[in-house]
Amino acid sequence: MVQKVGVLGAKGRVGQAIVEGVHAADDLELVAALDREDDLQTLVDQGAEVIVDFTTPGSVMDNLEFCIQNGIHCVVGTTGFDQGRLDQVRQWCEGADANVLIAPNFAISAVLTMSFARQAARFFDSAEVVEYHHPNKLDAPSGTAIHTAEGIAQARREAGMGAQPDATEQSLDGARGADVDGVAVHAVRMTGMVAHEEVIFGSQGQSLTIRQDSYDRTSFVPGVLIGVREVAKHDGLTVGLEHFLDI
Amino acid sequence: MVQKVGVLGAKGRVGQAIVEGVHAADDLELVAALDREDDLQTLVDQGAEVIVDFTTPGSVMDNLEFCIQNGIHCVVGTTGFDQGRLDQVRQWCEGADANVLIAPNFAISAVLTMSFARQAARFFDSAEVVEYHHPNKLDAPSGTAIHTAEGIAQARREAGMGAQPDATEQSLDGARGADVDGVAVHAVRMTGMVAHEEVIFGSQGQSLTIRQDSYDRTSFVPGVLIGVREVAKHDGLTVGLEHFLDI
Amino acid sequence: MVQKVGVLGAKGRVGQAIVEGVHAADDLELVAALDREDDLQTLVDQGAEVIVDFTTPGSVMDNLEFCIQNGIHCVVGTTGFDQGRLDQVRQWCEGADANVLIAPNFAISAVLTMSFARQAARFFDSAEVVEYHHPNKLDAPSGTAIHTAEGIAQARREAGMGAQPDATEQSLDGARGADVDGVAVHAVRMTGMVAHEEVIFGSQGQSLTIRQDSYDRTSFVPGVLIGVREVAKHDGLTVGLEHFLDI
Amino acid sequence: MVQKVGVLGAKGRVGQAIVEGVHAADDLELVAALDREDDLQTLVDQGAEVIVDFTTPGSVMDNLEFCIQNGIHCVVGTTGFDQGRLDQVRQWCEGADANVLIAPNFAISAVLTMSFARQAARFFDSAEVVEYHHPNKLDAPSGTAIHTAEGIAQARREAGMGAQPDATEQSLDGARGADVDGVAVHAVRMTGMVAHEEVIFGSQGQSLTIRQDSYDRTSFVPGVLIGVREVAKHDGLTVGLEHFLDI
Repeated sequence: MVQKVGVLGAKGRVGQAIVEGVHAADDLELVAALDREDDLQTLVDQGAEVIVDFTTPGSVMDNLEFCIQNGIHCVVGTTGFDQGRLDQVRQWCEGADANVLIAPNFAISAVLTMSFARQAARFFDSAEVVEYHHPNKLDAPSGTAIHTAEGIAQARREAGMGAQPDATEQSLDGARGADVDGVAVHAVRMTGMVAHEEVIFGSQGQSLTIRQDSYDRTSFVPGVLIGVREVAKHDGLTVGLEHFLDI
Repeated sequence: MVQKVGVLGAKGRVGQAIVEGVHAADDLELVAALDREDDLQTLVDQGAEVIVDFTTPGSVMDNLEFCIQNGIHCVVGTTGFDQGRLDQVRQWCEGADANVLIAPNFAISAVLTMSFARQAARFFDSAEVVEYHHPNKLDAPSGTAIHTAEGIAQARREAGMGAQPDATEQSLDGARGADVDGVAVHAVRMTGMVAHEEVIFGSQGQSLTIRQDSYDRTSFVPGVLIGVREVAKHDGLTVGLEHFLDI
Repeated sequence: MVQKVGVLGAKGRVGQAIVEGVHAADDLELVAALDREDDLQTLVDQGAEVIVDFTTPGSVMDNLEFCIQNGIHCVVGTTGFDQGRLDQVRQWCEGADANVLIAPNFAISAVLTMSFARQAARFFDSAEVVEYHHPNKLDAPSGTAIHTAEGIAQARREAGMGAQPDATEQSLDGARGADVDGVAVHAVRMTGMVAHEEVIFGSQGQSLTIRQDSYDRTSFVPGVLIGVREVAKHDGLTVGLEHFLDI
Repeated sequence: MVQKVGVLGAKGRVGQAIVEGVHAADDLELVAALDREDDLQTLVDQGAEVIVDFTTPGSVMDNLEFCIQNGIHCVVGTTGFDQGRLDQVRQWCEGADANVLIAPNFAISAVLTMSFARQAARFFDSAEVVEYHHPNKLDAPSGTAIHTAEGIAQARREAGMGAQPDATEQSLDGARGADVDGVAVHAVRMTGMVAHEEVIFGSQGQSLTIRQDSYDRTSFVPGVLIGVREVAKHDGLTVGLEHFLDI
């Protein structure tokens, strides 16, 4: 059975990639590709069952309110959701026939890296994160790397593990990375690279490395399509693609 | 509460590492370290609650029968278990007060690599395995790599995925690796290396790599200690450490 | 001092990237960006000192003859040069005021990987090559990987080294890769990847890995610019960017 | 022709590995394996042509003086050589029939990594170093990593390159590593690991990674044997194995 999909923000670089992804999927049909000026009513007229929103913080709330009221599920990659906005969306979903997925990261390899890191954490004495990005990135470490480290730290706490072993006595400033909740995080900035994250775990005589490489800016497409296919099955608001992966 | 542990095969290289591991663990007490000539009755006399058996195919069955009859749990890394032997052990466990864990691989990083590979498989178009070992290894690929590829292949089948994309028309013999159930497996033999496995997954614009490195031959110790701590909770016979990891 | 540069094949995807690269370089000035229909005489009229040719096997020889006769140096990435064509170009260069660089690979990271591999080869018992490409590639292994393996094999021979250690007795077909002159080469095909090569060397207790990643199709630009800047200093025909790198 | 070799410090862990390495080499003959108490005169009596010294700062100078005076070449891995000691050794070598190699690092993979890093540096906009060691290491980053970064920095200066691109505005303390002469160096501490160094270079659309892994503490042996075989050809004092590698 083919699902009818609308894309909001369809002319942006991200939106274009999603439009192509929907076109290429046999089980999805693109029924509306809207941009800033276009009327949301088109979604209803064309019978859209799910929309994908990669627009702007300024327009996403209006889009969501309209879609939820009209029983259209929403998959959202737009940024800028604080607790207040999430609560608002959750409230709109109550009693409505539409579900919403909001995710900060749709790159499936990044989402799995975080999930596996959390699963692995309690089996290893040591855990560190190294992320690699192009040198135009403004923040270090990346939000994903910080989030990954926090997940590891939480898993260690839940397993009753203490501080990581580290006998360093003499250190150049910064050599041992940033301390995120007891997990060292290192940020490399490298011309030519895109977005890459490596999580390393060590135990007696062995290490485990989970590495994610994003080679171009369409890497979120497969995750968005999973969202589109699964959102109807997850009632209300879900935050984070990992909850759709059954792992 | 401290568990009382006996080690069988305690003078072998592996056994010695386990003896050291048990000594180093606060929650475990070594009450018997037996080798070939020693009397199994010592285990009972010393009140062993769990034994670890890294002996030989020739002696392991006698050891297990004795321990199970005496209500001592068993964690077994000895090789040579075919279906007949497993059935025999399962039968001994019926009605007995002892559980048994038999595992082909106790390196926790290798066990997690296989588990994560199976979880990740259905999210990626492509999956291949590269394993690296010292050049004295007799078989290629390693049993672990074959097992990993089979797990990936099964997960792909269960998700209804078809063959992997591969447009190769012109190939040197062997370049594309061994075909294990539709998953390419490559074996590198390298002086200086020990045992390493890399599983690579690819999807649009991204890849996920899960890599396991064993640096020395004590890498099974943490996994054995997990077995020792958990075996009392898993009734009967369990085959494979992954079933003890709650992932 | 600024060099005046012409680009032939300027409207192709590769040519566009070179045009951008020349524009971005302070020491280079783009004086002509020609495509199929355009008159080569423009190069002379605009005072081009060097041209870059990424055109087609059908037009490159005419381009080179014209440029050499007019004292314009040539940096060539166009494919299809057999011995006959190279001899012809060499002959044109004799007595002319123009030099020519023809290179099969301008990705500086790939050229250095090959060079370092050749330097390292005699110090290690073991050497293998693993290359990774997108699954639309028609040949396996890549030409670069084969070339790298041949370089390693030659360096081993020159150092009087024998066959690599390998005790494999039992092997799945293809597991140990393709045999290129005694060096195993493995080809991985992976959706999302672009072009990547890894050369691994092993010796007692250690390994050395040289890895090259091409993330997008503009990775040849820095190498082309080196060619443009250096070609005036290298008399006659040079084949291979490595001869310009002083390593 | 077989060379006669003496080993000083033969009973230490390092010395034992060298003794085994000399035994295993067809072109070398072990004629003396001395430890603390033994008489150096044995070296002369047994006709040693080269000695290997992995002893202590307290005894190495006496050993060198004796050997140089007796025309025995020296390959030295003992630590603690400051400028004064090097000058003393250089003076002893003048007019003597013996040469001396003193090297801080005999792991051939580490020496090549540093050498290749220096060669590659001027071709890439970005360069960073990540080193990985067991968590009992006292200093961070490792001396080798600092030395590598300094070599890269020097090569960049000689090529007239400026600061590396880095738009970071918002950073957790330490995230961007230690600044060694303008090159970021990151130190990971990981149970199970031994000693590993990765140098990463980035340029448009590509990266080059040179990685060295030491899996056990015998990784210096091949480098020591190169020293033994080559020291007769290099007059006077040489500091650093790289000068023997002809690269």
